[in-house]
Amino acid sequence: MGTEVLRLLAEQGADLAQRVGAPLEVIGVSVRDRSKDRGPHVDPALLTEDAEDLVRRADLVVELMGGIEPARSLILEAMAHGASVVTANKALLAQSGAELYEAADAAGVDLHFEAAVAGAIPLVRPIRESLAGDRIRRVLGIVNGTTNYIMDAMTRTGADFADALARAQELGYAEADPTADVEGLDAAAKAAILASLAFHTRVGMGDVHAEGITRVSADDIAAASRMGRVVKLLSIVERLEDADGTERVSARVYPTMIPREHPLASVSEAYNAVFVEAEAAGSLMFYGQGAGGAPTASAVLGDLVSVARLKVHGGKGPRESRYASLPIAPIDELRNGFYVALTVVDEPGVLAGVAGTLSAHGISIATIHQEPIEGDDHDGAAEGGAAAEEQARPARARIGIVTHRALEAAMTDALAALGAAPSVIAVDSVLRVEGE
Amino acid sequence: MGTEVLRLLAEQGADLAQRVGAPLEVIGVSVRDRSKDRGPHVDPALLTEDAEDLVRRADLVVELMGGIEPARSLILEAMAHGASVVTANKALLAQSGAELYEAADAAGVDLHFEAAVAGAIPLVRPIRESLAGDRIRRVLGIVNGTTNYIMDAMTRTGADFADALARAQELGYAEADPTADVEGLDAAAKAAILASLAFHTRVGMGDVHAEGITRVSADDIAAASRMGRVVKLLSIVERLEDADGTERVSARVYPTMIPREHPLASVSEAYNAVFVEAEAAGSLMFYGQGAGGAPTASAVLGDLVSVARLKVHGGKGPRESRYASLPIAPIDELRNGFYVALTVVDEPGVLAGVAGTLSAHGISIATIHQEPIEGDDHDGAAEGGAAAEEQARPARARIGIVTHRALEAAMTDALAALGAAPSVIAVDSVLRVEGE
Repeated sequence: MGTEVLRLLAEQGADLAQRVGAPLEVIGVSVRDRSKDRGPHVDPALLTEDAEDLVRRADLVVELMGGIEPARSLILEAMAHGASVVTANKALLAQSGAELYEAADAAGVDLHFEAAVAGAIPLVRPIRESLAGDRIRRVLGIVNGTTNYIMDAMTRTGADFADALARAQELGYAEADPTADVEGLDAAAKAAILASLAFHTRVGMGDVHAEGITRVSADDIAAASRMGRVVKLLSIVERLEDADGTERVSARVYPTMIPREHPLASVSEAYNAVFVEAEAAGSLMFYGQGAGGAPTASAVLGDLVSVARLKVHGGKGPRESRYASLPIAPIDELRNGFYVALTVVDEPGVLAGVAGTLSAHGISIATIHQEPIEGDDHDGAAEGGAAAEEQARPARARIGIVTHRALEAAMTDALAALGAAPSVIAVDSVLRVEGE
Repeated sequence: MGTEVLRLLAEQGADLAQRVGAPLEVIGVSVRDRSKDRGPHVDPALLTEDAEDLVRRADLVVELMGGIEPARSLILEAMAHGASVVTANKALLAQSGAELYEAADAAGVDLHFEAAVAGAIPLVRPIRESLAGDRIRRVLGIVNGTTNYIMDAMTRTGADFADALARAQELGYAEADPTADVEGLDAAAKAAILASLAFHTRVGMGDVHAEGITRVSADDIAAASRMGRVVKLLSIVERLEDADGTERVSARVYPTMIPREHPLASVSEAYNAVFVEAEAAGSLMFYGQGAGGAPTASAVLGDLVSVARLKVHGGKGPRESRYASLPIAPIDELRNGFYVALTVVDEPGVLAGVAGTLSAHGISIATIHQEPIEGDDHDGAAEGGAAAEEQARPARARIGIVTHRALEAAMTDALAALGAAPSVIAVDSVLRVEGE
């Protein structure tokens, strides 16, 4: 990505100078290993392994190292020496955003990070500036290309998660250690950033409820398909208003069943798409490439032009806005629709028992579907040589349930009760359902 | 729309003060008639019929009058007295943008106009700022809600243009005098603004080739539907690179057949959607409400916060960027796919003749379809009492042709030749075709 930024800087230097009001000169490029060839757009004379020295000399610093350290210390050092900073580091912003904002404020420098969320898609600037006169209610979207690629592949091919992940790794859509993506941590970092911007409240990683896609099965995808749905990993941040008018913020990431007609359902491969719902503006959608060297470099350069303009012409870019300081609503207190898949003993009364358990927890069922699991003996009359073995295992059925909106805490309790019921062999899946 | 802006200002005053760094105080509201009731959000004491006096007293002026005069003079007067201006006036910007930009520059004030294009959708700021480090190749979209409502209604109901327009007028989607919308002038003004921003070149109304939707017939919509297409009024601005590397800008508006799978095909009713294609960022899409009081007010307030921040903290907002000053490519020199519908004499050799005429003009046919016009006598043997009348009118057929990309000038010549051919009774329709 650094190479792409340098390529664009070289190719569009004259344009950028016009837009900034002064030429942008690259005074150094910090790398781990100076001896590595970086291609035609990187002047080897600019390479340095002394990042600390470099950030002290710069007016503007572009941080594309990723990770927490040394990125955090270098950004703080740069700011202390009067440099404005452009970063694409969502993990750092989600963990240490408050510290970075405060350091920028104290030093009177700017901190821009359009590339940290949804790659090339202009999202941070529209939320921070275009919608500054509006009240955002909800931001909901697909902000992780790797998981979207995997879910898309599972939907298209019927593959299970492990196979789809392996294929994504082969093709370079997933990293060798895919944890941050598939466990939803990358999407959670972006949700924290979006929630902070949208609701003028500090929201960190610890405030985001994150579930990844590792437990989404081929069966879940097939069940979704039968119901005219697809499964997507969604990041959702929301302003909740309680009955007494008090407001709270919710931020969460989880695999979600959405109708096939939903605009997010057709977001394929590694693309990103984000809905922003604001009181006056209504629903806005932003769509584009969420990752990749060139798209991310485009976002970095847009920021670079902005902070350079501020350096040249003076003025003050948008600062951290946290005046609302709304409390975080725990996931337990939200209301969601759910899809629940159970393996049960196939005998009379089990479905009624499951329905009764949900009902006892105040959960109302929208649809329920039961079918025998193939290969089991559903006549109850095992025959022949395998009879002794088979007797120990009763015939099983699969129950799929879609609920109306229910309290998350009620569902947690209901699932515990179902899991403990003698007729329930396993709770196979729990997915949220959106977009009714 | 003014009322909506005042409502948001009143409801979100505290929030806005936080974001701006100082409270925003409304010092006056210019109206044509002070005695009219403006509802609960407009303090009658603020109403004035002396707009000139008001703009001289203001730090910030929001212009929502529309039209050229007196809006133009008042904006110039405001700027001369040191006020920054937020406007939603696309017609004025498309006609007098250069003059306004120069006046803003001379006075050292800011001119913002997010609401002038695509209502609430953040588009001006992303193009001016987020993509400032990228090179935009093309902007293509639906930016006029009225015509989209009409085309959508024609597609859904099979109605002809006149009926769909009447219905849109009844429902308030079209004005009593719908000229600016249905003739494509509003979309052309927005195209001029977008082209200016995207290509750093002054593009005015006169540089935009504009065709409206008044000649789109129910037959065209039906023909599109048979081919898996829909008809949309598109605004397209494009950077063209000639073989020798010289660049030109094209800006045009016309009804266009696009495949039903194209993301713009599903933009229904009065919604807007715009694709921005940039070299590094790739394809971005922006979608939302393109008109309406609250959505437009949201865009105005975003701008108001920006210019107010600049007033309070100093600095320089983005100025007119016209350093590229690319020449405008005339429509004749573009290459487009076309749909052409002809009424012809139904006799042997006519289709071959039509194909030959197109071929002689260097136009290659993708698909061609001929069918008899119902009600005509295609046996050539008129019988009974009406025979004498019928003899004077030969049986007719309808030919529908989709071409590969062809030079616009060649198509103009070919249509003239077809129109003059004895076997061609009428050239019924010519529509561009996009998105192969």
